[in-house]
Order: sequence, then C-alpha cells, then structure tokens
Amino acid sequence: MVDWLEILKECSETVRETVLPLLKAPQNQPSHGKGAGGDTTHQIDLVAENAIINTIKQYNIAFTLISEEIGIRKFGKKPEYYVTTDPIDGTTNALRGIPFVATSIAVSRNPSLQSVETALVTDLYHNKIYTAQKNQGAYKNNKKITTSDATRLETAVVGVDFNTYKTTQHINTITALLQNTKHPRHLGADALEICYVADGTSDAFVDLRGKLRVTDMAAAMLILIEAGGVITTPDGQKLDAQLSPTQKVSFIAAGNETMHRRIKDLIVKCSRTIS
Amino acid sequence: MVDWLEILKECSETVRETVLPLLKAPQNQPSHGKGAGGDTTHQIDLVAENAIINTIKQYNIAFTLISEEIGIRKFGKKPEYYVTTDPIDGTTNALRGIPFVATSIAVSRNPSLQSVETALVTDLYHNKIYTAQKNQGAYKNNKKITTSDATRLETAVVGVDFNTYKTTQHINTITALLQNTKHPRHLGADALEICYVADGTSDAFVDLRGKLRVTDMAAAMLILIEAGGVITTPDGQKLDAQLSPTQKVSFIAAGNETMHRRIKDLIVKCSRTIS
Repeated sequence: MVDWLEILKECSETVRETVLPLLKAPQNQPSHGKGAGGDTTHQIDLVAENAIINTIKQYNIAFTLISEEIGIRKFGKKPEYYVTTDPIDGTTNALRGIPFVATSIAVSRNPSLQSVETALVTDLYHNKIYTAQKNQGAYKNNKKITTSDATRLETAVVGVDFNTYKTTQHINTITALLQNTKHPRHLGADALEICYVADGTSDAFVDLRGKLRVTDMAAAMLILIEAGGVITTPDGQKLDAQLSPTQKVSFIAAGNETMHRRIKDLIVKCSRTIS
Repeated sequence: MVDWLEILKECSETVRETVLPLLKAPQNQPSHGKGAGGDTTHQIDLVAENAIINTIKQYNIAFTLISEEIGIRKFGKKPEYYVTTDPIDGTTNALRGIPFVATSIAVSRNPSLQSVETALVTDLYHNKIYTAQKNQGAYKNNKKITTSDATRLETAVVGVDFNTYKTTQHINTITALLQNTKHPRHLGADALEICYVADGTSDAFVDLRGKLRVTDMAAAMLILIEAGGVITTPDGQKLDAQLSPTQKVSFIAAGNETMHRRIKDLIVKCSRTIS
C-alpha cells in the first residue's frame, strides 16, 4: 500500500523549498510559452512541477501525471495512479508578489474528479498544508478542520472568481452575488480559496465562468467535502468531470447545505431572468 | 521638530505586538458596539487604537486623533497635529483569518487629505512597513519604492472594492472594469491595496462606492503619490476632503498617468451610457 499522504507532504515541502526564492524576487521570471492548460508557463511553474515529479519518482511508483504545464505524461510501467496537479495555483500573484499562492496535488485510481482519494493544497507563503483522504476527514497542518455553519449571505465572506475577461455571459449573476453578499473577495488562487471554505475562513466560493481547470480544484474539492462542505454544479447537480489538463468546470462551493442552497437559488433565479 | 516618521514606526511595532496574538485566534473576539465611522468595533480595533494613542502620548506631543473607532479626540493642550488613523484596516479579514490586514496612520497640520505630511501603512501579517513623507519619496521597509509602468488594462492587476452591498448605482461601471481587466482582485484591506499600487505589486486600485472613509486611505494616498502614482476622483478631479471619521471618498488610484487615464475614460464613458 502506497502512503500517498506522506508522499504529497514531501512534494509540498520540496516545492516550497524550490519556489520560495522565486517568490521573494517576483517579476524577474521569463515566460516559457504556453502550458498544456493554455496559460503562459513561467519558470516558477516548471520548477514546481519538476519538484513534484522528482519527489514521486524517488518512491519508484508508476504514475500518470495530469498537469497544467506538462499535460498528460506517464512515468514508469503500467501506472496504477493518476497524479493531477496545478504546481503553482496563483501564478500571477506569485509573479507580482501578492502573498497568496498554492500548490495543488490530487491522487486517484481513475481519471475523474469524484475518484480523487488523497489531496493536498499548500499555502506556500504561509506554509499551511491542507490535506484530505477519502472518508477520513480534512486537516490543516495535521489538525482536523470543519466548514463554517454560517447560513446568511448578508453577513458572509464569499470568494468569487471575477476573472471574466471579455465574457459577458455571467456578469448578471456575478452582479447579483455582489449585491447580496456582505464581504465578497477575490484573492486570485482558487485552490486556496476553496480550502478557505473548508476550514471556515470563508463561507463560500463560486466560480461560474466555466474557465477553471480541474487541475486547479481537484485536490481542494476533496478537502472541502471531507471538511463537511458542499460542492455542486451551478444548478445543483453532482460535480464530476474527466481529469485532463484542458477540462474546465463551474461550481458552487459552500460550508453547508443551507448556504449552498441560498447561493444556488440566487444563481438559478438570475439565469431565469436572463433567458 | 517632531520626528513623526520614527513615532509612527514605533506605533506600528506596538500595534503589531499587541494584535498578532489576536490574529492567531480569529473569530473569538466579542464586538464592542459601533465605532465613530459607523462600523462594528471589535476588540482588535480597540487594542490597536490604544496602542497608537499610548505610543504617541509617551512623546508628550499634543495631537488631535481622528479615528474610525474613537472619533475625534484631543490629547494635550492646543494640539498642532492631526493623527488620522484606521487602527485595523481589514477587520473582517482579521476576524476570519485572511492574511491581509493593515494599520494606517497619517499625520498633518490641517484636517484635510492634501495636508498629510507623514504616512505609514503596515501589513501586519507580513510585517511590511510602507512609509512616506511629503516630497521625500515612499519606502517599504526603508527601501525606496516606485509604481508600475504598465499601461495596458488587458494585462493589468487591478484592485476593485466590490463591497457594494445593496447598492446598484455603480454596478455597471464595476462590470465594465471587470470585463476589461485581466486580473481583478479584491483582498479586503483598502489601505494595503493602495500600497500595492505604490510598490508596483498591482497596477491600479479603484473604489467607486463612495463608502471608503478618509481614515482608511489618508496615509496610503500620500505613499502612492510619493511613489509616483496618480490618485483622483472618479472623474479625474483633484482628490481632497476633510479629515473626519465619517468623511467618505471615491477614487481611482493608478501607477501612472496612462493607466489612470484608461480607467478614468472607461468609467466616464460608462457613466454617460447610464445617464
């Protein structure tokens, strides 16, 4: 039996050691073309990805890597495991020096979101390590975490990904969310913002753009569910998707059923008004 | 001659020492009614305000305090100086554990925004101290800072205060900003987000709600100007206002004239469409 949790923790440590010097000297990093997910790849992304690959290789485990940068690549013979990763979540933050950057790694035996068994998201600036194993709860720095029991949007802290760059489709819904939420936030590292819902730092996180890659949220999704949170598609359906570097999703993540329903109702109502 | 810069740095140190234990135990803090600015006052706000008052008092300087919590209060006889402060900028972040929280202090000889002579904003989580003196440049941890020279909104990092809670007046303008900006952010501590423009971490910060108190941005405004940035009202007029706990402003803050003009033109165009 492979102890993936320990391996992911070691990956996290190696990434942090390698990446910290780059975080301290932002904006001096050349770009390296586009990654498999379509975004510009920077030195920091490659360095983090290599740190993860090299750490897992040391354990002589065959695995299929599904990464925003490298795409899909097999390591070893007849790999049994899928390792889905966004080596650096919040690359723009990292390049500009905004202290909100994470590493995200999810392990599964099938290439689907719902199959993820072991997950890790590390807040690289503040060295907070969020982990989860299926049916075994979620942890931050080895302490059990649970979601917020807040149910009122009027006093809630809600993360919303606003990077709707040149799309108009969802602007009415996002507007409705802004008008009904006391404390909207957009910090710029989605994996970490989902983990904030998991440990009750915030009450919900919503991404309606259909632009977020599964590589960015696969690990955080398990952490949220294991912490007692709820995550579905924007219309309340079960959230599942193929794990691939180009697969994208929209979702509502919330600390509890009531908060989730309130946001879902707001979004569904808004979609009806538009159509 | 009073060395206000040294006094403010000592204030910052005292606030940080007093407040750090509270930042490590978020959400356990009782509220203490409403402050002079109208927001709920929490223990962390009072503790920080007292730390500032007690530090300045040790220097036997007479001063008029203009604070979000205490309101306007004179200390000593015939005070020559005004000390305008938001002891904790980002109280919600502090209460929830989101690591963007600042202390803001501005000193002037007249109670107006344009009269501020010495300014300090401290990022309490990361111990980054932003300072400025009129006509003497801006500094972060004693190193000179300058703004970004980026001029394209299409690739910019732009802070926008989205806390438009139940107001509809500016939603069209905010929507236009979201659709034209590559990386919008809302971190929830306005003083710090203006300082991010000052040191080039971001390219602009916009608050159109008419809800931001001068106590929250008086210090950051001088820091931005001294770093080479531009700050005006949303229609491009000189930004000035009475320093008082209830006085509020709207503004565009940008790293340079070109970026400022692009945002202003977008906002002015949008206002015309609406009216």
